[in-house]
Amino acid sequence: MMFKQITIIGFGLIGSSIARAVKKNDLAKKIICGDVSQEVCNTVSSLGLADVAITDLAVSVKGSDLVILCVPVGKMGGVAEKIANDLKENAIVSDVGSVKKEVIAQLQPVLPNTVHLVPGHPIAGTEFSGPEHGFAELFEGRWCILTPQEHTELKAVEKMTLFWEACGSNIEIMESGHHDLVLGITSHLPHLIAYTIVGTANDLEDDIKSEVIKFSASGFRDFTRIAASNPTMWRDVFLNNKEAVLEVLQRFSEDLSGLQKAIRKGDGDYLYQHFSDTRAIRRAIVDAGQAEPEEIKVLNKKS
Amino acid sequence: MMFKQITIIGFGLIGSSIARAVKKNDLAKKIICGDVSQEVCNTVSSLGLADVAITDLAVSVKGSDLVILCVPVGKMGGVAEKIANDLKENAIVSDVGSVKKEVIAQLQPVLPNTVHLVPGHPIAGTEFSGPEHGFAELFEGRWCILTPQEHTELKAVEKMTLFWEACGSNIEIMESGHHDLVLGITSHLPHLIAYTIVGTANDLEDDIKSEVIKFSASGFRDFTRIAASNPTMWRDVFLNNKEAVLEVLQRFSEDLSGLQKAIRKGDGDYLYQHFSDTRAIRRAIVDAGQAEPEEIKVLNKKS
Repeated sequence: MMFKQITIIGFGLIGSSIARAVKKNDLAKKIICGDVSQEVCNTVSSLGLADVAITDLAVSVKGSDLVILCVPVGKMGGVAEKIANDLKENAIVSDVGSVKKEVIAQLQPVLPNTVHLVPGHPIAGTEFSGPEHGFAELFEGRWCILTPQEHTELKAVEKMTLFWEACGSNIEIMESGHHDLVLGITSHLPHLIAYTIVGTANDLEDDIKSEVIKFSASGFRDFTRIAASNPTMWRDVFLNNKEAVLEVLQRFSEDLSGLQKAIRKGDGDYLYQHFSDTRAIRRAIVDAGQAEPEEIKVLNKKS
Repeated sequence: MMFKQITIIGFGLIGSSIARAVKKNDLAKKIICGDVSQEVCNTVSSLGLADVAITDLAVSVKGSDLVILCVPVGKMGGVAEKIANDLKENAIVSDVGSVKKEVIAQLQPVLPNTVHLVPGHPIAGTEFSGPEHGFAELFEGRWCILTPQEHTELKAVEKMTLFWEACGSNIEIMESGHHDLVLGITSHLPHLIAYTIVGTANDLEDDIKSEVIKFSASGFRDFTRIAASNPTMWRDVFLNNKEAVLEVLQRFSEDLSGLQKAIRKGDGDYLYQHFSDTRAIRRAIVDAGQAEPEEIKVLNKKS
């Protein structure tokens, strides 16, 4: 047993998937669910996802060796305040937030010095929200980034490394600001763009909108899956990683203007060159084992 | 047998897939491949995809009841000029271009009055190019849009409808300008955006770029597949559907500015509202049978 007792606060898709992975891989004797929603606690109980499910967060952390905060980034500080006085000495506190610098800024001043903060970000998810949609295998083969601070005790970092490895993840250690920039490009900007384009389609006249839905397989569909992600989670990501997102968005906008100008001017060479360069990145991703080359073919055959 | 002899000009992913579908479904006695590349003709011969493979396009159309142009949109007019004098009387000429208004403008003045032009657009494809990547099932369950003109003989339209239905497609008849607007939104804009964002990442410093590849599964990856599409084909799409693309791009840019401003000002309500609205479109697409709700979960489990 890696931990005697684990508390997971916030039992949505990620929190409930962690609980399932903990159970499947025998990582704790006891799992406590802390969630301010009575409805979520009821679902957790009826699905048997935790030994105890309780809305009082302070009570939920008592006696736990590991507490993982799985709430939207904007809620982290508030939760930390609620639980700070009841954390066990030497407990590890971790989180799964998609933004790390701001989460650390929220948590560090509130948490007592007697606990070890090891911020984390499992890069995994689906377009679905809620405890009923989690599954134990969500983290298998996926990256989990840990962003400890300079003063963080190495032993605590090692323990969280082993924990996520046991859930099937590959671990990367990163500085929190660097994490926010990398994820700003690979995740936050793509989500913002997908939300925008789907929103643009949503504003169309009704008759065209029904055709957009009908012919969505021609490219648009891929954006809608991303744009169906949890709105609260993503609102908080953008509010709390403002600087990095606005920076990469600026670069994106400049590049888009360049292509727009090339289309307007009929500059085929510019377009061709740009469209050829981007193929190389796809190849690199396939080579890195991060995508299956036959993915789309399979999807086509299914649909 | 639906046709005695079919000529397919341009034996890339789409052309070779049509040939395979024709063979699989017994739609013609004889298949002729016309492709200006000797290398492509050699591949077609060695794969046994056509009865004859020839670089002389004029010769390739002789005696064929159906000629399908599967070349990039920018090449349609040039091909039509080459074959115009050798087309059989009453032959049907069709194409697979992603833009319809401009293709009709290129073809109609060049083709003789004795043939029937039935422009078409099968909405199907993969990120791969070339005759070796085609497969007979590419069109199964996918839409094929036909954009006949007012004077087009109904019998020819019916024949092309039956042809694509035999390949497994669902048929939609549309006015060419309307097609270009709908596809501008559902396909051309998404591709332009995907090309842009992948290009933005491509311009990053090398150390960050390697991390973008490593952590691409967090959203970016979906864009790279789209941005790995055939550069020549897409260059021609944007050059030949300029008006519709610039129009929808304008709307997109305005919407992106709105979200950018909301992030800068920290307007959480605006972001939340926008991110909630976009979920409805995904649901409509799933309800319309155009996407599988469990798609991403399956991909996650695989990867």
